[in-house]
Amino acid sequence: MLSIRVTAPATIANLGPGFDLIGMALDKPRDIVEVFLEEKGEDEVKVSGLQASDIPLDPNKNSAMVAAKAVLKKVKKENFKIKMNLIKEIPPRRGLGSSGASSIAGAYAVNCILGNPLKSEELLECAMEGEKVACGSPHIDNIAPALFGGITFISSFNPIRIIRLEPIKNAEILVLSPKIEIGIEKTKIAREILPKEVMLKTMVNQIQSFGNLIIGLMKKDLNLIGLGISGDHVIEPARAKLIPRFYDLKNRALENGAYGFSISGAGPSVFALVPKGEGKRIGEILYSILRENGILSEYSIHENSEDGVKIVS
Amino acid sequence: MLSIRVTAPATIANLGPGFDLIGMALDKPRDIVEVFLEEKGEDEVKVSGLQASDIPLDPNKNSAMVAAKAVLKKVKKENFKIKMNLIKEIPPRRGLGSSGASSIAGAYAVNCILGNPLKSEELLECAMEGEKVACGSPHIDNIAPALFGGITFISSFNPIRIIRLEPIKNAEILVLSPKIEIGIEKTKIAREILPKEVMLKTMVNQIQSFGNLIIGLMKKDLNLIGLGISGDHVIEPARAKLIPRFYDLKNRALENGAYGFSISGAGPSVFALVPKGEGKRIGEILYSILRENGILSEYSIHENSEDGVKIVS
Repeated sequence: MLSIRVTAPATIANLGPGFDLIGMALDKPRDIVEVFLEEKGEDEVKVSGLQASDIPLDPNKNSAMVAAKAVLKKVKKENFKIKMNLIKEIPPRRGLGSSGASSIAGAYAVNCILGNPLKSEELLECAMEGEKVACGSPHIDNIAPALFGGITFISSFNPIRIIRLEPIKNAEILVLSPKIEIGIEKTKIAREILPKEVMLKTMVNQIQSFGNLIIGLMKKDLNLIGLGISGDHVIEPARAKLIPRFYDLKNRALENGAYGFSISGAGPSVFALVPKGEGKRIGEILYSILRENGILSEYSIHENSEDGVKIVS
Repeated sequence: MLSIRVTAPATIANLGPGFDLIGMALDKPRDIVEVFLEEKGEDEVKVSGLQASDIPLDPNKNSAMVAAKAVLKKVKKENFKIKMNLIKEIPPRRGLGSSGASSIAGAYAVNCILGNPLKSEELLECAMEGEKVACGSPHIDNIAPALFGGITFISSFNPIRIIRLEPIKNAEILVLSPKIEIGIEKTKIAREILPKEVMLKTMVNQIQSFGNLIIGLMKKDLNLIGLGISGDHVIEPARAKLIPRFYDLKNRALENGAYGFSISGAGPSVFALVPKGEGKRIGEILYSILRENGILSEYSIHENSEDGVKIVS
């Protein structure tokens, strides 16, 4: 029996104007996936950890398992059966790439056991199968940073081509998760609320913000990165409606020294890029704003991780 | 009597997906502006050079003069009168930033004579006044590279904020100008033909191309720059209709080794980024395509200039 244990990080997708294109790996939390390959028996998933009861156990509906099985299919080793322990440390449906991390962890684990027959792009394709069962749409903006770490830009969808950018250093990432439920099909709802078309002028403004983000990342200019993150003219205005007191949170974060602020992935978590050591102070301010409005939340302080998915034992 | 002589370069705006945001300075041609400041007499413009008879002599309609007078106004020295010799080496209405170069040259010349009271951003504002009388809209995507050289990204419109990127090295820029007239109000026509709205998916594709362009420029990756240039999903498809055999030209350029191909500014010139030494061969091919279709054209081979506007004597 061949076995392996891997972890994959939570991620923040979009980073403001980079909708469907950009994502960032966080240092924590990380999902853990333990995989055993056998030539007999049945596929089986066990799930433990955060909100474990929300995660499907059906091997055809569990993201990590679907991704893992996609690897077996691609390398034509479907005679193998998979026993999987999925330990959820990334809360599902918060906008932190939970299903993306599980998916890439599942795919990566099986690929490692088999001696790495698949290239990175193929692993992403397999993980997309897992993401599809969880979110309804096979986007890779959370999966790519969970695989490569740092910050990833999707240079091409077909064929998949990823450019990895160096992680942001010397700054903290404050994540605030309001305790609300957008709905069980959260990603679908957050996608349906988006405009179908945008004005040409708005597109130019969006590209300008994206330019600031990318140039900022490459020049390691935190103020410019923040200007980019905060300058989403299309996705954020639509999705802000799903997040209580969104603009209060954003304004107060920026007034208090955050470089940039936007929605994490499809939300409802929001995030701020803040100077080192400032995450706790700004986190308390944002927590209080929601608390005063009768909404509980949690905040956590992160770094942009160098590492993506990796073997732990 | 105080006098100066400055030159400003032709420019290529947009570079494919960077509509209204990106521009590149060429090594040649360069407009020449000679300015004499006097405290008596009247404003007067003389124009010589290419298509000189198309350039207005009215001081309120000539781009270089309007920009120069805007400097005097901004520094409250409207008692000065301007005598100007404008020598056009950049052909007007070809999509090579002709009026933008004249405008920044006029503004820069007067600012120099006065001991540089205005900062770069203010000079751009003055040059925009000149561009407005020539093109009807005060865009700075041609003016900024004519001022700074290299490649410029407009990080913010209001306040104006420009980020200068290093010029592309080790490649030639082939410019092909079909001898057609889109109309005397060419920029207006080229703007009116654009879609008012774009699909969200198209916007994402456009941002992806823009990301490839910017990351390519910063990593000095000619193939990635070219992928970005060639990936305009919004402006090019609309304006290609104004340019004869556009897609034949594009396909043949790319098949023959060009890194990227798109429309220069508002057209009708097109440009290709090509490997060093390949400009002439590819230029002949493109020239022949138009010639076979009964359309005369000119091609010229350039480099991305380090220099923007500068004093020559």
